[in-house]
Amino acid sequence: MTDDLDDRMHFAIDLARRAGELALKYFRDLDNLTVESKGHQDLVSEGDREVELFIRAAIAEAYPDDGIVGEEHAAVTGTTGHVWVIDPIDGTANFVRGIPAWCVVIACARDGETIVGVTHEPSTDETFYGRRGGGAFVNGKPIKASNAASLSEGSVGTGLSNRASTKNVVVLITLIMAEGGVFYRNASGALMLAYAASGRLLGYLEEHMNAWDCLAGMLLVEEAGGTVMKADPKTVIGKGTQVITGGKHIFPRLQLLCETSFGPTR
Amino acid sequence: MTDDLDDRMHFAIDLARRAGELALKYFRDLDNLTVESKGHQDLVSEGDREVELFIRAAIAEAYPDDGIVGEEHAAVTGTTGHVWVIDPIDGTANFVRGIPAWCVVIACARDGETIVGVTHEPSTDETFYGRRGGGAFVNGKPIKASNAASLSEGSVGTGLSNRASTKNVVVLITLIMAEGGVFYRNASGALMLAYAASGRLLGYLEEHMNAWDCLAGMLLVEEAGGTVMKADPKTVIGKGTQVITGGKHIFPRLQLLCETSFGPTR
Repeated sequence: MTDDLDDRMHFAIDLARRAGELALKYFRDLDNLTVESKGHQDLVSEGDREVELFIRAAIAEAYPDDGIVGEEHAAVTGTTGHVWVIDPIDGTANFVRGIPAWCVVIACARDGETIVGVTHEPSTDETFYGRRGGGAFVNGKPIKASNAASLSEGSVGTGLSNRASTKNVVVLITLIMAEGGVFYRNASGALMLAYAASGRLLGYLEEHMNAWDCLAGMLLVEEAGGTVMKADPKTVIGKGTQVITGGKHIFPRLQLLCETSFGPTR
Repeated sequence: MTDDLDDRMHFAIDLARRAGELALKYFRDLDNLTVESKGHQDLVSEGDREVELFIRAAIAEAYPDDGIVGEEHAAVTGTTGHVWVIDPIDGTANFVRGIPAWCVVIACARDGETIVGVTHEPSTDETFYGRRGGGAFVNGKPIKASNAASLSEGSVGTGLSNRASTKNVVVLITLIMAEGGVFYRNASGALMLAYAASGRLLGYLEEHMNAWDCLAGMLLVEEAGGTVMKADPKTVIGKGTQVITGGKHIFPRLQLLCETSFGPTR
């Protein structure tokens, strides 16, 4: 089974990098990119759609009986218990405006539990990856979540969506700064989760994220020795989850700030 | 005089890129980087200090009678009315933790008015530059500030420092979101100003910035057709300034939000 996990991880790494190359072609020709609005401050481009089709085709060829859930196209039901959960471009608002902070995200879940996670940032050529029980890495180098015990030792990532109240984010930011912390928001939740996994941020907190944005990064934080509030395996792929992740010493504090800001989760 | 401006601009572009190469050597070897605290959430590394010395030496050789003001070393008084205002690494907190969003900033002012501005991001190899009256560019391509008229059309950058109240930032973010906007903070003010100049952000707002962080970017926004609240040329280099910048249609709204959040500036 470990071999299978490794195979799936290496497949996902290679695929994310190839998908990133394709996405970069669109990113380098933004003047000709078609962009549509899906809702308030929620964009999709031809690049998102085409890159997702590219990823889906590769998965269908390599793992034809697995399920696929992606941001931009309809879900494919599989028969193996494995579901690939993909975001072709996380940080589309950055992507379509020319800000380099966006990434390709590929996760694989088995019975609702994430077993492989890959986050690839084409602009800087960094690939964050891991599989359950195997540690987490960036470009071959092991990564570790933060060892900090106090918010004054770094920055905490957070994000926004139409699925959560802007008031709650304001409360969260206020609490972070009241404890000497600093908030960080580069508009790619998956990338900030990878930064939390590599100790670049103390943690990443968001009231609600879709599965394609968070599954890979949540696994990376866990495999990097951080702590993650466990998502419900029965519902996370279909409905998403609240995301609380961070270094193991700072996690209890971050969880308390989230409870105060977002309300109880259970 | 235009020739002199062009010469100074091309000198600054070349210097920022060479300084970026040097900074990248430190960035790629973070395990061995010496980092010190200058104050609450305010760091400086051996990389900042060495890159600033490199930039200062190049300026002293090319323009020996000009003044120099930088973040990490004492000011040099000149005799020509020209002062180079430099930040070797803007976004040091990112730099020392491995987050790629940091930049080298070189501005040149004459009698307190910025005449040349260069912001170079080594991780993505983007160089934003301009000189007064000559337009603004990234890697040779002209850039334009946003044409948006509503906050719902994009994101607004903002920042934090020990010189401003965290409460005021919270008010600003609340107001931005109340109008359908989104806040953005990647922890490099100079880089976000360059993003405002290139229309990637609607604008950039901060209650107080030091001259080395903001002069280059403020010129870039102006030269890209945006609007900038003018800084006092008598005090800006020594004392810094409040920063309100944005596309020309959105600027009045951004200014109003800043007045509400930060209080009147005059």
